Amino acid sequence: MEGPVVCLIDQRRLPHAYDILKSHSCTETVSAIRQMAVRGAGTIGVTAGFAMAQAALAASGRRFREDLEQAAQAVRSSRPTAKNLFYAVDRVLGVLKRASDAEAARQKAVAEAEAIYAEDVRLTEAIARAGLEILPDGKAVLTHCNAGWLAYPGWGTALAPLYLAHRQGRPLFVYHTETRPRSQGAKLTGWELERDRIPHALIADTAAGHFMRRGEIGAVIVGADRIAANGDTANKIGTYSLAVLAKAHGIPFYVAAPYPTFDAGCPGGEAIPIEERDEGEVTEVEGLLEDGRTAAVRVVPAGTRARNPAFDVTPAELITGFITERGILPAAQEAVLAYLAKNHA
Amino acid sequence: MEGPVVCLIDQRRLPHAYDILKSHSCTETVSAIRQMAVRGAGTIGVTAGFAMAQAALAASGRRFREDLEQAAQAVRSSRPTAKNLFYAVDRVLGVLKRASDAEAARQKAVAEAEAIYAEDVRLTEAIARAGLEILPDGKAVLTHCNAGWLAYPGWGTALAPLYLAHRQGRPLFVYHTETRPRSQGAKLTGWELERDRIPHALIADTAAGHFMRRGEIGAVIVGADRIAANGDTANKIGTYSLAVLAKAHGIPFYVAAPYPTFDAGCPGGEAIPIEERDEGEVTEVEGLLEDGRTAAVRVVPAGTRARNPAFDVTPAELITGFITERGILPAAQEAVLAYLAKNHA
Repeated sequence: MEGPVVCLIDQRRLPHAYDILKSHSCTETVSAIRQMAVRGAGTIGVTAGFAMAQAALAASGRRFREDLEQAAQAVRSSRPTAKNLFYAVDRVLGVLKRASDAEAARQKAVAEAEAIYAEDVRLTEAIARAGLEILPDGKAVLTHCNAGWLAYPGWGTALAPLYLAHRQGRPLFVYHTETRPRSQGAKLTGWELERDRIPHALIADTAAGHFMRRGEIGAVIVGADRIAANGDTANKIGTYSLAVLAKAHGIPFYVAAPYPTFDAGCPGGEAIPIEERDEGEVTEVEGLLEDGRTAAVRVVPAGTRARNPAFDVTPAELITGFITERGILPAAQEAVLAYLAKNHA
Repeated sequence: MEGPVVCLIDQRRLPHAYDILKSHSCTETVSAIRQMAVRGAGTIGVTAGFAMAQAALAASGRRFREDLEQAAQAVRSSRPTAKNLFYAVDRVLGVLKRASDAEAARQKAVAEAEAIYAEDVRLTEAIARAGLEILPDGKAVLTHCNAGWLAYPGWGTALAPLYLAHRQGRPLFVYHTETRPRSQGAKLTGWELERDRIPHALIADTAAGHFMRRGEIGAVIVGADRIAANGDTANKIGTYSLAVLAKAHGIPFYVAAPYPTFDAGCPGGEAIPIEERDEGEVTEVEGLLEDGRTAAVRVVPAGTRARNPAFDVTPAELITGFITERGILPAAQEAVLAYLAKNHA
């Protein structure tokens, strides 16, 4: 955040262009979340915090409370699944309650949004360290979608231990799925791994089982959009299939996420709202033409119907463990609640 | 085949254009197979038969046998996985041995290629009837890639029972995966189902597990490129993952194929050669631009490495049964060998 302006990497343009989107208002920032200029649980959360700070800066002294409630409503309705979004909105609203006047509230809102950001960076650094112990030796790690630093500010979540291990000189190989629709594994994870020169290969989503069966995958590590109290985890569509496949092959399946992604108030996966997005994401693919322009191509005839659930729920019993800022956590209700209790203490 | 010319639907252009490719020589037809103008086990087989007929028509009387052996070599090397290709080449070579002179051999070659085609049509009609009994009531069928009449002349394999049930007025719903790379489920299966007005929805490959878990899928039906004597089945990459998922959800998983796709000489899946194709199939997607032109877009930065196995092997124990021209067959070695013995009797 620079003054009232929120600066965001426009992830829709990656990997073909690295553009900074400057948002001048809460409304613009909400729109950036909704249109997926930013995505990924942590990045959505941090951006939501800044959107609330922008709302505080712009709110009139007289209607301050009403304006902020209205802004919170708009931010909350931008994306339904990621827990971090609701977490960040609540944190900023929480500090506003303790402010003596509108000017103090504005300062507190900006400070709290910055604090969420800074804390998230520290959390992902701790996840990087915690995850080192479960990285396989001599086999590849498979990851899905993008759970790197584009998705979670700092080190990312699923990719965080890989970044740290690579810096420590440990040999690694990463298979990353394309992650249709939107192809964020191909576009974003590939781009991140390339920047850090971590050896990797892109595979079609259809090929994950094949490489598992051949014994090439030593662990699956993914991020999360929301983790229920019982350990059920909502994440990008396709995560559930990978968890079933990992189980069938005896491959450990880890979900990397810090506490703001956990939702103590959500009893289980069936209570997590699953966003169903536009059919065009399935029927079209965006990329770069030979002449260097970006374009969307329609793969199917106009009017072809598609179903497009953006997330799925992986039940806790398929999850070997959570890689958290407090170490590896079993995917079981008592462990999750004890862990969350520590964070709230 | 019209005279010496083989007429093929250019499947690379579907669904955006319906073009007939006219091949004037064995070499051109081999190239059409290699470049995947035609694909699908049966269609590859039938085309291979016609390629051999073209070779016979063009071969000189003096070097007839050598020319045909050379042509057989070229046809066999065009695609490694589909059993039908080798089956068709062997059938045409077989009749040539019994020909009295070159002219008689030419006539026999053309007649045998036509006979393979006509028999394949009858086989798929029998598969359509055999598959009716395993179609679920009230739940959707999930299919992968394209195993319709584009892939297997006549009625197709996996889609054959659906076409017949639909004509009989039975209510149906089909989920078909995009089937990356090459997106043949999106492009070809969607186009076929649309032509017959069978209710269907395209899903990303990542969404199959999600819809299974929600209880929407009553059966998975796929085709096959080659079925080993023990029932292990090579088919389009992603088939294996769907079989594991179906097993985990207690959903019947059927492979539809007639006897030319079975390979009695292949003991098990590990002996089936798996084609690894160009990385560009994963890193690029072809489709239609807004202006109506077709184009490929590159999804990832230039130079991104990808792995691209075109097929995978589904072990027999994950297969509920084979839908064959002789009815539903258990996926077990004795059953497969007994079935093949009947066909050779």
